[in-house]
Amino acid sequence: MLKIADRMSRLGSETAFAVSAEAAAFAKEGNKVYPFHLGDINLPTPKNIVDAAFKAIRDGKTGYCPNSGIPQLRELLAKDVNEARGTHYAMENVVIQPGGKPTIGKFIMALMNPGDEVLYPNPGYPIYESQIEFNGGKAVPYTYYEGKENFEFDMDGLVKSITPKTRLLVLNDLQNPMGAECSKKELEKIAELALKYDLYVLCDEAYFDIRYEGRSKSLASLPGMEERSVILYTFSKKFAMTGWRLGATIAPKEIATLIGKINVNDESCSNHFIQYAVLEGLAGDQTEVKKILGILKERRDAAVDIMNSIDGVTCFRPNATFYLFPNVTGLMKRKGIADYDTFRKTVLHETGVSFCTRLHFGRPLPNEKNFYIRLAYSGINIDQIKEGLGKFKAWAAK
Amino acid sequence: MLKIADRMSRLGSETAFAVSAEAAAFAKEGNKVYPFHLGDINLPTPKNIVDAAFKAIRDGKTGYCPNSGIPQLRELLAKDVNEARGTHYAMENVVIQPGGKPTIGKFIMALMNPGDEVLYPNPGYPIYESQIEFNGGKAVPYTYYEGKENFEFDMDGLVKSITPKTRLLVLNDLQNPMGAECSKKELEKIAELALKYDLYVLCDEAYFDIRYEGRSKSLASLPGMEERSVILYTFSKKFAMTGWRLGATIAPKEIATLIGKINVNDESCSNHFIQYAVLEGLAGDQTEVKKILGILKERRDAAVDIMNSIDGVTCFRPNATFYLFPNVTGLMKRKGIADYDTFRKTVLHETGVSFCTRLHFGRPLPNEKNFYIRLAYSGINIDQIKEGLGKFKAWAAK
Repeated sequence: MLKIADRMSRLGSETAFAVSAEAAAFAKEGNKVYPFHLGDINLPTPKNIVDAAFKAIRDGKTGYCPNSGIPQLRELLAKDVNEARGTHYAMENVVIQPGGKPTIGKFIMALMNPGDEVLYPNPGYPIYESQIEFNGGKAVPYTYYEGKENFEFDMDGLVKSITPKTRLLVLNDLQNPMGAECSKKELEKIAELALKYDLYVLCDEAYFDIRYEGRSKSLASLPGMEERSVILYTFSKKFAMTGWRLGATIAPKEIATLIGKINVNDESCSNHFIQYAVLEGLAGDQTEVKKILGILKERRDAAVDIMNSIDGVTCFRPNATFYLFPNVTGLMKRKGIADYDTFRKTVLHETGVSFCTRLHFGRPLPNEKNFYIRLAYSGINIDQIKEGLGKFKAWAAK
Repeated sequence: MLKIADRMSRLGSETAFAVSAEAAAFAKEGNKVYPFHLGDINLPTPKNIVDAAFKAIRDGKTGYCPNSGIPQLRELLAKDVNEARGTHYAMENVVIQPGGKPTIGKFIMALMNPGDEVLYPNPGYPIYESQIEFNGGKAVPYTYYEGKENFEFDMDGLVKSITPKTRLLVLNDLQNPMGAECSKKELEKIAELALKYDLYVLCDEAYFDIRYEGRSKSLASLPGMEERSVILYTFSKKFAMTGWRLGATIAPKEIATLIGKINVNDESCSNHFIQYAVLEGLAGDQTEVKKILGILKERRDAAVDIMNSIDGVTCFRPNATFYLFPNVTGLMKRKGIADYDTFRKTVLHETGVSFCTRLHFGRPLPNEKNFYIRLAYSGINIDQIKEGLGKFKAWAAK
């Protein structure tokens, strides 16, 4: 008789995939769908990166490579990360991964014992909570609240949640789904807490380079933090190559070595020739990479402008990520809709606009009064944004 | 202070990588090295597969795909596996993975609780033992012994090792490092035991298609076994694409669904465009694929002939895999060498021939009297096989 392992009952998922399935089913019935639900990118991977991949295959980079990645890439990525973040990493700190996501589970496996408490953002990327609980830890949420210009880190909530069992902190800065970003002062406070309470931090910086103005700042660059930070790095977003699956863990040497050992056990190594492709992405011509950011910024502005023109909706204009997290409390009230799923499905069926809601980013916290949806504008062109959100606006005005 | 998670102390590795490092260091000093140590393939990936990958990239298959793989590939692979094995899989039984290896850990995570006992082959691929212990299970070895034509499954040993705590069995058929293969009768006996003791079986069939004569047979094709087998499938070997990292888990639906959920958590999905490449590999022209087998067979024969001509060495000629596991007990005795590492390093430094030994395939069992080395002939051309093993023979004759 099939007995499933107990740990499987603690494994979560990304319920956003169910939204995709519903959107696909609705489209199949002959309806037009405006896909704001998935954080994928509908732009081609820059040609120089594609060409470098082709060349590497032709050059025979089709066999195994070292489990932590090819030395050239580890070295160049360390240099690149140092330049962008002011850190001091070397090759030994870099472990290439098949995507950004693998760093989440490997960080937790390497550093968390069953029963340890891990602080994680909620609303946030649902895989943190899932991997913490799957591996026997206790996932303790902290949150963000609406500030003046953007969502702000709930520092008081974080401080209050620290207990003698707290071992790890997950910081997703710049943040999905809220597009939030810690100020320098907030990063300093988090560093102070990490040093005081001996916390190790997963710095999920998947959106570090998806930024329209100013410069991103890494927690790892603060005094004493390079030694206790593990950076989740990905090539997926900045190079529009989500489906290629390449990323990296950047960590103190001892942790990097352990995570390399997990690589040996889990997947041997990451794809060999794609590592040459991203070498070109990092060192080669940046024209197409910059174009991607320009396109995303135009989309953001179009979407934010329409959303803010809707009665009962307010929407920040985040400087980074490709997500919006509009507050739709007033609109839902006006429409007499009391729950997320009804609202989401109604909008899909009335307008074709498909999105995730707050429900797809962790269990709602007890004190939540407002309702939010998440719009990803990375996978939909600007004319479709205008058309789709125009229909949404017209429906809202009815 | 950095506290590593307790589970990390139970994580093993592939010590074969250390042999690679030693060989590389020896080569760097200006010495010629004959690489028999790694199971990589020094042949190009067939051109039609490469071209299909290029086309898929150009067609924009560069974004995310479903976490269990693209439906076309899952469907075609099910069909292909059914034709080769006489099984009855459908799309829902197939979960695409970034390589063959990920199936090992995911099988164990999905079905084994801490404290459960898992039977695994020793000598064998070291990751089984590592993943069992890492996830809190007890790894219980079974072995193979020298038969007349090849190594044979130690059925008595297996039967004696079953206890009320035994939950899972790992069967690597065709086997690395011994090139062993279960007879139909042995598979029937294993199936009988699995049914009697309610065992679920990981059928590691990474070498199923690396076969020179006859047909491979899968345990999963025996009555009642499709329901309790999880097949580790890989494109790495048959298509000479180890570094591309693509494989699959083929399992009963309930298990496949669970493993798909692990995919969501661990790496989102496998590379998108490579799935189109292997569609061509499976459905397209097989000329180059067949050539690979022809080349490997010539290499096998060259290597086996030389090894058997060495005084104190005996070597089977396995019908499958690309490994030889010669018995070097007599030679070591004659040379006055009592331990594996001295023998391996002496041969490397005296002849340039680099190989793994039995030590790289699990902890030696208490009753072992013979000494074995493993030669992989997939990564070295036939002229180099003759030259290298010729030097080995000359050294042996001294």
